Formats: sequence, structure tokens, C-alpha cells
Amino acid sequence: MTYLGLYALQHRGQESAGIVTVNSGKLLQRQGMGYVADVFGDDELDSLKGTAAIGHVRYSTTGESRLANAQPIVTNSRRGQMALGHNGNLLQTEKIRAELEAEGAVFRSTTDSEVMLHLLARSRHREMGSAIKEVFGRVAGAFSLVLATPEAIWAARDSFGVRPLCLGKLNSSWVIASETCAFDLIGARYVRDINPGEAVELRGEHLTSWTIVEPGETAHCIFEHVYFARPDSRVFQKSVHSSRYEMGRQLAREHPAEADLVIPVPDSGVTAALGYANTSEIPFQFGLIRNHYVGRTFIEPKNSIRHFGVKIKLNPVREILEGRRVVVIDDSIVRGTTSKKIVEMLRHAGVAQVHVRIASPPTVSPCHYGINTPTYEELIANRMSVRKIREYLQADSLAYLSVEGMKTAVGAENGFCAACFDRNYPLPRTPRAPQRELFEMEGV
Amino acid sequence: MTYLGLYALQHRGQESAGIVTVNSGKLLQRQGMGYVADVFGDDELDSLKGTAAIGHVRYSTTGESRLANAQPIVTNSRRGQMALGHNGNLLQTEKIRAELEAEGAVFRSTTDSEVMLHLLARSRHREMGSAIKEVFGRVAGAFSLVLATPEAIWAARDSFGVRPLCLGKLNSSWVIASETCAFDLIGARYVRDINPGEAVELRGEHLTSWTIVEPGETAHCIFEHVYFARPDSRVFQKSVHSSRYEMGRQLAREHPAEADLVIPVPDSGVTAALGYANTSEIPFQFGLIRNHYVGRTFIEPKNSIRHFGVKIKLNPVREILEGRRVVVIDDSIVRGTTSKKIVEMLRHAGVAQVHVRIASPPTVSPCHYGINTPTYEELIANRMSVRKIREYLQADSLAYLSVEGMKTAVGAENGFCAACFDRNYPLPRTPRAPQRELFEMEGV
Amino acid sequence: MTYLGLYALQHRGQESAGIVTVNSGKLLQRQGMGYVADVFGDDELDSLKGTAAIGHVRYSTTGESRLANAQPIVTNSRRGQMALGHNGNLLQTEKIRAELEAEGAVFRSTTDSEVMLHLLARSRHREMGSAIKEVFGRVAGAFSLVLATPEAIWAARDSFGVRPLCLGKLNSSWVIASETCAFDLIGARYVRDINPGEAVELRGEHLTSWTIVEPGETAHCIFEHVYFARPDSRVFQKSVHSSRYEMGRQLAREHPAEADLVIPVPDSGVTAALGYANTSEIPFQFGLIRNHYVGRTFIEPKNSIRHFGVKIKLNPVREILEGRRVVVIDDSIVRGTTSKKIVEMLRHAGVAQVHVRIASPPTVSPCHYGINTPTYEELIANRMSVRKIREYLQADSLAYLSVEGMKTAVGAENGFCAACFDRNYPLPRTPRAPQRELFEMEGV
Amino acid sequence: MTYLGLYALQHRGQESAGIVTVNSGKLLQRQGMGYVADVFGDDELDSLKGTAAIGHVRYSTTGESRLANAQPIVTNSRRGQMALGHNGNLLQTEKIRAELEAEGAVFRSTTDSEVMLHLLARSRHREMGSAIKEVFGRVAGAFSLVLATPEAIWAARDSFGVRPLCLGKLNSSWVIASETCAFDLIGARYVRDINPGEAVELRGEHLTSWTIVEPGETAHCIFEHVYFARPDSRVFQKSVHSSRYEMGRQLAREHPAEADLVIPVPDSGVTAALGYANTSEIPFQFGLIRNHYVGRTFIEPKNSIRHFGVKIKLNPVREILEGRRVVVIDDSIVRGTTSKKIVEMLRHAGVAQVHVRIASPPTVSPCHYGINTPTYEELIANRMSVRKIREYLQADSLAYLSVEGMKTAVGAENGFCAACFDRNYPLPRTPRAPQRELFEMEGV
Repeated sequence: MTYLGLYALQHRGQESAGIVTVNSGKLLQRQGMGYVADVFGDDELDSLKGTAAIGHVRYSTTGESRLANAQPIVTNSRRGQMALGHNGNLLQTEKIRAELEAEGAVFRSTTDSEVMLHLLARSRHREMGSAIKEVFGRVAGAFSLVLATPEAIWAARDSFGVRPLCLGKLNSSWVIASETCAFDLIGARYVRDINPGEAVELRGEHLTSWTIVEPGETAHCIFEHVYFARPDSRVFQKSVHSSRYEMGRQLAREHPAEADLVIPVPDSGVTAALGYANTSEIPFQFGLIRNHYVGRTFIEPKNSIRHFGVKIKLNPVREILEGRRVVVIDDSIVRGTTSKKIVEMLRHAGVAQVHVRIASPPTVSPCHYGINTPTYEELIANRMSVRKIREYLQADSLAYLSVEGMKTAVGAENGFCAACFDRNYPLPRTPRAPQRELFEMEGV
Repeated sequence: MTYLGLYALQHRGQESAGIVTVNSGKLLQRQGMGYVADVFGDDELDSLKGTAAIGHVRYSTTGESRLANAQPIVTNSRRGQMALGHNGNLLQTEKIRAELEAEGAVFRSTTDSEVMLHLLARSRHREMGSAIKEVFGRVAGAFSLVLATPEAIWAARDSFGVRPLCLGKLNSSWVIASETCAFDLIGARYVRDINPGEAVELRGEHLTSWTIVEPGETAHCIFEHVYFARPDSRVFQKSVHSSRYEMGRQLAREHPAEADLVIPVPDSGVTAALGYANTSEIPFQFGLIRNHYVGRTFIEPKNSIRHFGVKIKLNPVREILEGRRVVVIDDSIVRGTTSKKIVEMLRHAGVAQVHVRIASPPTVSPCHYGINTPTYEELIANRMSVRKIREYLQADSLAYLSVEGMKTAVGAENGFCAACFDRNYPLPRTPRAPQRELFEMEGV
Repeated sequence: MTYLGLYALQHRGQESAGIVTVNSGKLLQRQGMGYVADVFGDDELDSLKGTAAIGHVRYSTTGESRLANAQPIVTNSRRGQMALGHNGNLLQTEKIRAELEAEGAVFRSTTDSEVMLHLLARSRHREMGSAIKEVFGRVAGAFSLVLATPEAIWAARDSFGVRPLCLGKLNSSWVIASETCAFDLIGARYVRDINPGEAVELRGEHLTSWTIVEPGETAHCIFEHVYFARPDSRVFQKSVHSSRYEMGRQLAREHPAEADLVIPVPDSGVTAALGYANTSEIPFQFGLIRNHYVGRTFIEPKNSIRHFGVKIKLNPVREILEGRRVVVIDDSIVRGTTSKKIVEMLRHAGVAQVHVRIASPPTVSPCHYGINTPTYEELIANRMSVRKIREYLQADSLAYLSVEGMKTAVGAENGFCAACFDRNYPLPRTPRAPQRELFEMEGV
Repeated sequence: MTYLGLYALQHRGQESAGIVTVNSGKLLQRQGMGYVADVFGDDELDSLKGTAAIGHVRYSTTGESRLANAQPIVTNSRRGQMALGHNGNLLQTEKIRAELEAEGAVFRSTTDSEVMLHLLARSRHREMGSAIKEVFGRVAGAFSLVLATPEAIWAARDSFGVRPLCLGKLNSSWVIASETCAFDLIGARYVRDINPGEAVELRGEHLTSWTIVEPGETAHCIFEHVYFARPDSRVFQKSVHSSRYEMGRQLAREHPAEADLVIPVPDSGVTAALGYANTSEIPFQFGLIRNHYVGRTFIEPKNSIRHFGVKIKLNPVREILEGRRVVVIDDSIVRGTTSKKIVEMLRHAGVAQVHVRIASPPTVSPCHYGINTPTYEELIANRMSVRKIREYLQADSLAYLSVEGMKTAVGAENGFCAACFDRNYPLPRTPRAPQRELFEMEGV
């Protein structure tokens, strides 16, 4: 079941995968680099016997010796065995690490999970619930986590509810997952979200809810709805599909275009493109076809031939595009290089005009809460105005959804963190953005 | 380049992949089981030096010891080295094999390619062109093939033009591929199709065209347009996208439905669903999400849990579906088991009604020309009437596109083979279908 | 160089292998399960750039999730990065672990190395040399270790000198290894042993010697000379070959046999057998041939056939053995099962008599200092008298070398630990042996 | 059982391994590059069900696409399925291939086995026995082969009996193997050799013997006794151990040396060295230790370090060697490069004198009957006199066993082929040696 759940959540992390089971008072562990289906073969699954389990998929970050960073991390301490899988990002961990190291702590990875396990081990509370309350009530940052001990499974979430975490039920068993699509695959029923600031303790069929810290305003990550989560999931109690569709509709209202066709950049732009087409009443077509066979092992052709880039993944359908004025919809622009190649590709396929519409605002600031966005320097919208980006892309027009439009689409003016778009970082102790004016949002 | 071309054609065969290069008068070969990206690593590509190359991807058929069947097959004979990659299916090969064996021939695979190489080796014509003309002018069946010798690359096609084969140009070099999407990836330009009954000989920049046999009526495989080819390819000089879109439109005309939504079975039903939505003016939505991480190594959960089947690949989006009357569009129904599970899945997601519309006629007969369709017994439409199939699927209604509608959509009343739908096998010496009446095509 | 050194020391550990390099102030790490030649390919070695390195091979112990136990272990703490590879066994680590855990320490492996790294991290001495002196001056047990930091390489040895550790020089570079055979392979020159109780600090060409603790009596592991080390190594400043040869000679003096041939159990019994043959003047022959292709992946035949056991590795040469009275020499008997099969195998090959002679005393007690001996219950000599063992083996006679004879052979009445043979554990805080009388040593 | 047999015969071929089973009238096949233990895992062995089987290990020859050359080769022809595994070398196969190709034959490998299968397929005899008689009675060259059909297993041997082939019995089942050591491992009993010119047909417990061709003089390969076979095997009804021991004794008689020690080059020189020591009454010692962990994947250190060559495999034991006059015994010298390095290594270890003694005559001519010897140009003894070779090796003396001495040792003045030593190729149609005088055999 855990294997299947990880598989459903594969889009959340492709670097490494791990599962820890609870078997007769001991934790068993398997992990490896790569996709869930590659890490776990028959032998691995057979060896993971037990009555409860937690799992984790991790996505690519920098750093050598990466297997040491794979999760869940298993440790031994005065609390006995504990395994922890963490989604999110703690703040000021360098400071915590330094404090812990000053007290003699020894780290074997660069993960926040290991930091949390150290804090738990050091808590003076004997009872696990109190230790969790002490530790997770104090750390700054975003976390949705699962924790396994030989006695129980725990799940906890920061008081802002930055990352999603859902509670489900399969027959008489409890299930926890980042997104509801994992419940769908195994046939579990969604019960409710783990609340911001809540920890739940699962012992067999028994669930105990603990309040770690009183929640205030929530700061759900709006980027989950923009890009990260699967459209068939409910996240923050809201259908991702509906949000994206509404973003597309709102984008059409804010930035209409004179065009013959709406086409998505597949797969991430599909839902918004359908919304845009619906509201603009411009026909929707799949003008770009995605090759899904691209795997981890694909070898880029040698430089001596030439750079094939985005063509490995996407191919235009000339019959659809030739002579047409197309609106191409994507979920966001990060560095701008892929978008530039797509515009070029569409021009080669004979489009009359390319109107780029982005179903989110310009991405101007990195995420400090767990999404792997690049630095300020790499974010094109941090360096250029929309006008300049349009020139760079060589598009006939370019427009982004407004921050307000995005929030309306997600259905919550408040309660969301949109810092990557508006630089308002809601969590205390977040590093400040550089003092630089945001470019004026310009019309098309 | 050949590696990239195979990669673009990966959908045509996932069992094994092979490349043969011509290097200083010798043929070099690499092949393996699995995807192109898995078979060819840096070492393999580095070892495949040369000035010309052919490649092949093969799809899964029965039989042990399958690596021996991987193509291109390389042989030595009085004609020196020859390598052949073949798409299609010869007829009465058992008879030819028996004749060849009677004369002492020894086979190491069960492929038609090996049979062809034997026939070529035995031709009394010294000149390759004449040998090709003699051999391929005589054999019955469907073939689009590429052949490498130390001197030249050949491409040839049966006189009915059953399987596609395209000629392109990249700078001053000739390129041959089954579908134009391979040209797109490497930046080559489509020139023309290899004609039915034609062989071309490529020596450096020089192309010589040979007429193997005078073509009569063509019998292009209509299933390429229905399902097999990529929508971004041109096949038989016609856009696959356009055919499928038109099939969807025609299906809407023939079999309208009172419904709130049109949803495709992704990925194969998407284009037709867009056409159906366009004509019926019923909104199009992605009500089923496909998980593209399913790889070759995915482990089905143990029976002790339960069978997850189609849920591994597809997940419904409840927000889209709940309470709606949906038209679900697929390209075809083969055994019916997947369709049944999709209907069940949609019902669980809360749809009010499920109207199944198939963008091709009932598949009633196996292909003898190279598509891996199952036996008569396995084809549900051979065993059941449309009414019975609807009952089996538990759909509220079920309708198929008519043969005429399909042919109109593809834009050619004549010139296509639709034997899997109408049992009219155009090639001589094709095994006859069992004497059984086709079920009447019934209304919804 | 480190790769080659580990390769020369492969006999000391086949479970996992690891290398850590020092590169521009950072530690880089690669490790994996299996043989050195399997763990390190071109890519791994290329990625291990640097100006200094330490490596480790580990041998099979119990416990799941074993990669976490692979060494050298790399950690981060207030001392910055440290990597440690350890040969030996600490005593009372459960107590130390409990104390460390009580202070909040978190462990990710079950290795002594991780315990040492924790102790180092917690030492209040800022200077590394003083920390090493504090920590390694206090812990009980056997250790020969190498330690890498971004600034220096350290090597240290317990005050009893239980495990070997040698210092060599290659051009102007220092080299450290467990056995001198590693120096031979890379062309380094043996300089001296790291002294019991000494730590050396290597910074470029500079060597600083620290006294961790004043050494008293040494307790060199005699089993290194009996079995563990390679015969071409010098260990404890003494040739292993010479010790084993002398043990064989001494065994012949103590326990002569009326026989026609002396044969070794290859490879471990070869040197002693040559000594026995030399003194007894009975001809030496290779009556048992060893198949060296046995690898880690060899599949034992199914039980449905039968158990092949020792025959996979050894095969008797009937021509040598038939009708002969043979003395078969092995280095030791642990569980007795292999010896029993060898006697049976020799009888099947037609020997007239089998006289088993063991070039060490009965193994009666487990090692607590780093050799992987089984429990008291599994040691046949702990459960049975020599007379009973002979009956169990069905040998015509059985005799072991005396403890005195062994010590004489190694050339040092004092200064060696022979606890596995005589239960005199020289290190303080070693767990006591159960109060049971040793069986009287009986004659043949 | 076949897996175990191949494993026992691994020394006869390390490039590839294959097994074919007969299962319910069909042949099943698995093969791969590398060692037996690597090619066959649980899955492979499980898939090889059946009531009879043949297997093959192949050793390294040149040529790309080598998997196509792996054996047994399985074919289909008018004789149905046949699989053949072949040890030896046919003569004039280029001519046969050309004839077969002229008649239209198509080859997929460059192996003699495929040629034989073609000849069998073309035989006009319907009965297999007669076909075998016709084909194998006519071809020139050396062959010991096994052949599987759905009905029976066949084994056959050329009329000169060049390569060994033994018949054994395990319970009521027949077993065939190149060497008796394979019987020992599986517990089978040696019955007799397959006779030169004989074919045996095995159907269940039934054995039928066919005379392919009347044998004349035998020409057993003497190199099997010199080097190739395992010492624990009986080959040509003679113990390999005994032959080698006797070669050593004879060598001592022919070429005594004033020395303190006899040491072997392990493993191949061990038996002869024991014989030399026995006769010369010079003590035997293992002065060179072999590292058996060298596997297929071992990576030679980069040139930037330096060439380690033979030190990867062999290490001298200084304690044994220092100051001694040693006789070093090897089975043969091929190119001379390894011997040169061994002498150099011994000098570095401090020997006073090195007397090289080779337990066979100078290798002056390549084998045309199945041993992979190098060309005339590469054979040092073809290019240099013994005096010159001694200078090249920088040995104090060098001497080879005489041809007569070798033949005496093997116990058969006649009946052996020693062409690699004396250029007398006994089989008709063998390519002639170049007209060049053999160097005079010189004294030490």
C-alpha cells in the first residue's frame, strides 16, 4: 500500500524513494536512488514486512553523496528507533544545527529531517506527544511530516499549513498522504486534512489528535494549485483541477487575445488552457504533443550534432497550427529558456501569431518553504519586465494572471502563501527578499 | 540521429530496440530488450560509429528467447553482410519457411525479417536491386523495411502500401522513417512517401528509385490513423491529428448524446474527444488523469491485497465528474476489460450517466498485416453484439463510429484496409475469417 | 591508490567498501555493498577527486539496512566534517551509546565508528589531537582506525595494539594500511607500525606523532597470524608466512602421524601444511582443488536436488588420494560442519586414512576485539572434547596445535592475545566467559 | 545440474555462458555475457524447465556483437529445432561457409557451431544419426560437441579425439562433460570417454552409440594436460594432476638447478613445481601469493599513476625469497611479458638468483584446434632463441622441458598432438606453419 501511495505521488519527487515498516517492535528500511518502480522490486517489497509503514519520495537538490539524504531517515536515540519523512523546509536550520553541534550533535546528512530527529531525541519530555509538541511547536518553517516508531505512526503539520497533508481511511486503517490521489489509487476514503498545528498519533485503529501549537492565519502554498500537485487531487480541501481551470478562465478575462486556437504546453498547462478556451470561446487543440517515454536515462545527443532541447519532449502538430493565431498557455515561466524554445518551435510550425498566456503571476522570488525554485538571478521575471520577457521570448504578446486573479481562482483571497509571486513571506524568520522594486505589471 | 529517430518512434515498439551502422565496409550492431533509452547508453552509442545506419523498435509478441528476435537482424551470406529491419507481416511464411528449410535453410529466429534475408541471399540476381525486385515482388504480405549493406541503405514497401514509410532530407542526407514525427525531432524535412511497390537505394547523397512491382489499389492501414501512429505525424500523406479529430466529429454526428461533458480516455482518445466536443458543443474536460510514471518495472500489488488494474494508470477527477452525464471517448475497444473498469471507475466518482462512444467501428477481426491484435475469441466485438457489450460495460449507452464514417474522416473512401473492422482483407493469400455473420450495428 | 589498497585488503571484508577523499576542504564519499571491484567503477573513481583519501572494507555481520553501516562514515558536527574507518571492536559500547543517547545523541548506524565520531564531536578539546587523545585514551576495546578531516588524515591504535596498523611511504607521501600487502601492490615502502597507544597526524608530507595513552603489555591478535591476514603480509612486524609455516612445523612435532601424504585445505591451510610436510618429511600434495570462481552471486542449487555444500568450492584429486593415508591440515575448526564434509569427501575419493591436524588450538571462545567468530554455542570445541570432535568428523585421528606451540611459532610467548583459544581476555571491561571448564586437551 | 556443470568448467570459458533445455518437445534458451554465476540468476534458472539440457561456456575471442556468438546456438530448419554447443575448431570453414553461402545459406554468427548446424540441416539423411554421421564424418578439424533436439541429446567427437569429452552417469541419467571435475561436483560417476569418431544418442536412460568415422591415430591435445584442464580432472583417461606432477619431475631431471627453493607461478605452475621439488629435493614454498578477487570488472589504475600489471594478481613473500636462489616454475611462456615482470618482481623481493623452469617446451606455433594461442609474431619462442628469451627475462637461467620429456610425462609417446610445441599438425587440411627453422633447443 505504501509502495502504491508513493507511486501515486511520484510527481512530488523523482530523486530517491524510501519505505520504513514497523515489524514486531523494530523498524525495517529500504531506500534507493530513482523512481519508486525502480527502487522497489519484489525482493525489496518482500523484505519490508510489518503492520504499519511510512514512505517518502524526494526531489532533486544539489549535493554529492545523495543516498545519505534519502528519506525516511532512521535513527536510534534515547527514544529508541524513529524514522521520519518530511515535506517542506525548516527555517534557520543552520542556526539550529550550529546549536545542536555546539552541544555535541553529529549529523550524517544535510536534511531537515535529521535536524528534527535530533531535536526530538533531545526533548526532555518522555512522552512522544509532548516531545513532538515541544519540538514542532518551536521550529520555524514549513513541515508536513510522518514519523514512525516501533509503537505508533505520527503525522504533523506546521501551524501555517504550508504543505498539504491529508488523513484517509481504508477499511479500519488510517492512511496519511500529501495528496488525495494516493488515497484514490489504493481505494482509501478521504476523511479530513491534518489541521495546521496538529499532530495525530495512530496506534492500530486508534487516532489521537494533539495540538502542537495554536494555528493563526494559514499560509497554504498556492504553487501546489498552480503547478505542483496532480489535478486529480484535492489539496487544502480544494480540487486542484478546479483551481487551474478557474485560473485559465480568469486569465482569459484579464488578458483576452485575438486568436484562432488555444493550445496548452502539456501536461502542466492543460487544465488552465481548457479554462481559457472555455471563457474566451476560442477552440482548444493539442497543438504540442508530449513524448512520455523520456526517462531518467535518456542521453542527450552529443554537441557535435546540435542541441535538441525541448524537442525531445514536445513536438508541434503542423496541421493544427499552420497559419493560425494561437494562444499558448503554460502554468508559469521560471527561467524562460523553455518558453523561448516553444515559441520558436511554434513559429517553425507556421503559426501566424503566438500569444503567450501564463496562468499565474510572474515568478519573482524563490520559495523558502519547500518548492525547488531557482535563485533570484535565475528567475527571468526578477530580472526583466514583462515587456522585456516578451521580447526575449519573441512572442507576439505575453501576459500573466494577476495575483488577485490567481487568488480568486483558488477561491481564497486570504489564507494562501503566494510569496514566489508577491514576495510576501508569511512565516516568521524567513530570509528577506533583496530590496528591489518589482517591475510594474504591464499590459499586453 | 538514428537513436533519436527510434526514440520518436518508441510508441511503435517497446519490447526491444536495435541499431546497425555501416562503418568502413562493415556492419556494426547493438541491440537489447527494453526502451530505446535503456538499451543505448553512452558506451553503446560510442561503439556504433559509421556513415549510415538503420534502426528498429519491436513490440511485444509471444515467445521465449526473445532477444534472438530483436531487429535489425544481421546476416552473412554470399551477398556479404546484410541487416534488415521490418515493419509489417508477411503471409504464408510458414510455407516459405518450409520451402527454404527443405532446401537446407537454417533459422535462428521466428521473424519475417530472417525469412526475407534468406530469400535475398538465395536470389540468383547478382545485383542487389534486382534481387530486391525478385524477392519483394514475389512475397505476399505487408512490409515496410530498411536494409543495410556495406555499400548502401535500401528502403522498400509492399505494393499495397499497408504500412507507412516516409522519405526525408536532413541537409544533404536522406532519412527514412515510419512516421514524420521522427523527422521533426531531428530537424529533417519530409520529402515524400516511399511509394507502394517502390524500393529506394541510397548511396551517399544519391537516391535511385526501383519499381519492385506495379502497384494497384492501395490498402493503407486505417488503424494507424485510428490508434497506432502519433497524432503529430503525417501518415499516408495525411495528418493523424486531423483524421482523429474528424472521427470524433463524425462520431458526434452519428451518435449524439445528451450529456454535460465529453471526456477522453487518455492518451489515445484525446483527439477524437476534442472533435466530438467541438461538434456536439458539449464541454470537453480531462475527467481521467493518466499517471505517466508507469514503467516496465512496475510491480503489480500481490493478489493478497487486491487487483488494482487500470487504477495504476488512470484516476478520475471527482470534481469534474460528480453528478454529470459524461460522454467518454476512446479510440477502440479490444477485449473490453479496460473499458469495463473505466465505466466502473467513473460511476464510483459519481457520474450521473456514462455514454461510451468509440471513435472507430467494432474491432471484429485480427490484423494479418502487422498490428498485434488478439484472436477472434479475445475480441469482444467478435463475440458480442453492441447491445451485449453495453450490458457488459454497464454503460448507459454505447456506440461506435460506422465504417463509412471512419473512412470519410480519414478522407479516403477507397485506398484503405479496414479489415479489422469489416473483415475485407485486401491482400491475396490472407487467411480467411471464420464464416460467421457480423453482428448488426445497433443504435444506442 | 586507495582503491588499489582496498583491493589488496579485500580478504579483510567483502560486505561493503567505501572511500572518502579530501578535496579542496571538503570530504567526498562513495560506498556500496559488495567487492571493491564492483563498488567502484570508472564513474565512482572519477568522482573521488582529492589530495588525500581513506578507505574501508567491511565484513559480513547481521542486521538489515546494511548500507547505513558501510564505512568510512561521514559526519558533520561542531568539528566540521569528519570521516572514520574502523577496524576492531569497542567494548561496552551499549553503555556509551546509552550515555550519549541520554545526552541527546542520535545514531543512524549500529557501528562503533559512529560512536567514536560522537565522542570526538563532544570532546571539549578544540584541537583535534587533544580530542583524539581524550576520546581514544578513554574508550575500552580494540581499534585501529583512520580519520579524515578537511585538514588532515589521522591514524590511531589502541594501547594494546590488538589490530595491526602499518605506516608506509610512497615517494614523499605517507600511507597507512592494515597489512603490508597493500603497500606492496602500490609500490610503497613499509616504514614502521603505528605504535600501540599512538595517533599520527598527516598533513601533506608532515607527520606528527601523538601519544594517546601510555601502552603497557601488548595484546596482538594471534588469529591474524593463524588465519586472517594474507601470508605475504607482515603483521605485528612479523611475516605471516613464517608464523604459519612454523605452526605447521610445530604441529608436526607435537602431533606426528603415520601417513603417506600431507594435504592442505586450500587456501588457508596451505602454508601450515608445507611446514608440517617439511618437518614430518611426508610428501606434500594438493589433494583438494579449490574453485576460485565462486562469487557473491552464486546460486545454491534448490533443495529439491540436494545440498552441494563444500563441493562447490573444493574437489578432491582421486589420483593423489586413492589408497593413501593422508594428513589434512587446516588453520582452525569453527563450527565443524565444513571439516566433517571434507573428511567425507576424502573418504569418497578413496583415502585409506584421514588424519586431521589443525594448526591452531581448539577455538573455544568468541572474539570481542573484531574477529567475527560465532557464539559459544556454535563453536564446536566449546561443546565437545577433541575426542568427540574426532568422532563427529569421522576422522581416523584429530589433533590441534597447543597454545604454547602456537605462541612459540609466532615467536612471542608474551604480547599476544589468544583469547579465542585460551579465554584469557587481556583488555579490561571484556565480557567474561561463562564459568565452564575447558575440555582437557587429549592426545590423538 | 547443467548450471553446476558449467560452473565446474568455468575455467574453460569466461566470455559467455548459455543453457538450452528440452521441455515438452521444445527447446528453451538462456544466455548472456560473463560468468556462469552472473548470467544465471534465479529467474533464468526457473525459466529453464525441462527434462534434458545442454550448456556451454565460451572464451574470449575478438569481434563485436559477441552475444550473437554465444552458445549453444539454437536453430530451426527442416530438422526442427536443434541446439549445438561446440568445443574445438573446424578447419577450412571459410571454404565450407563459401560453399554453403553459394547455395543460399545465411549466417548470423561467425561460429563453427552455426556452420555445423547448417550442414546438419542440409544433410539428405532423414535420420539424425545418419545426418550426424554424414556431416561429422566429412568436416575437417577438432570438435567435441553436444547437440539437443526435442527428441534426444547427442554428443560427438572428431576421429582424432583432439578435445576431451566424457560420459558419466548420475543415478539413471547420462551426463556428458568436457572434464570429469564437472561429474565430481554433481556427484556423477565417470563411465568412459566418448570415443574418437563416436557419436552417442541419449534418449531418457537409453544410450545408442554410432560410429561417425573409423578412428585412426589419436591426436589428444597435450596442452589440456600442460595448462588448460583442471588438475582434479581426468582428461583422455589420465589424471591431469599426475601429468603435471610428472612434467615437473622430468623437468628437474632434464634441467636441474643449484637453488634453495622451488616456487610456482600460481595457480598454473603449482603441480609441476611440486614435482620439480620432489625430484630435485629442493624445498617447495609459495613465494608468490595470488589475489583471487581479481574479477571481470577490476579497473586498471589510470596511466597517470603507473602500470601495475602483474602486481594486481601476484605478490612476492619477501620472507621466503630474500637472499635465496629460487627456481620458479611456470607451465608455459606465451608472449613473455608476464614472465619478465615476475622475474623483476622476484628481484625486487631480494632473491639471490632466479632460475626459470618451464614445464613444457617452447610454445612456437599457434593452435588450430581450439586453444586461443596468439599469432606466430606474438609467440616469444617463435621469435627468439631460449638464450635470447633468458636475456629478455633477465633470469639467471632458463630452461624448458623437452618435447620428449613432456610426452613421457603424459605417459604417451604417441597419440598426442603437440603441434604448438613441435609444429607437427596431425589433422589433414591444417594450415601449414611458415617455412622457418625452429631455434635449437639450448642448454641453460
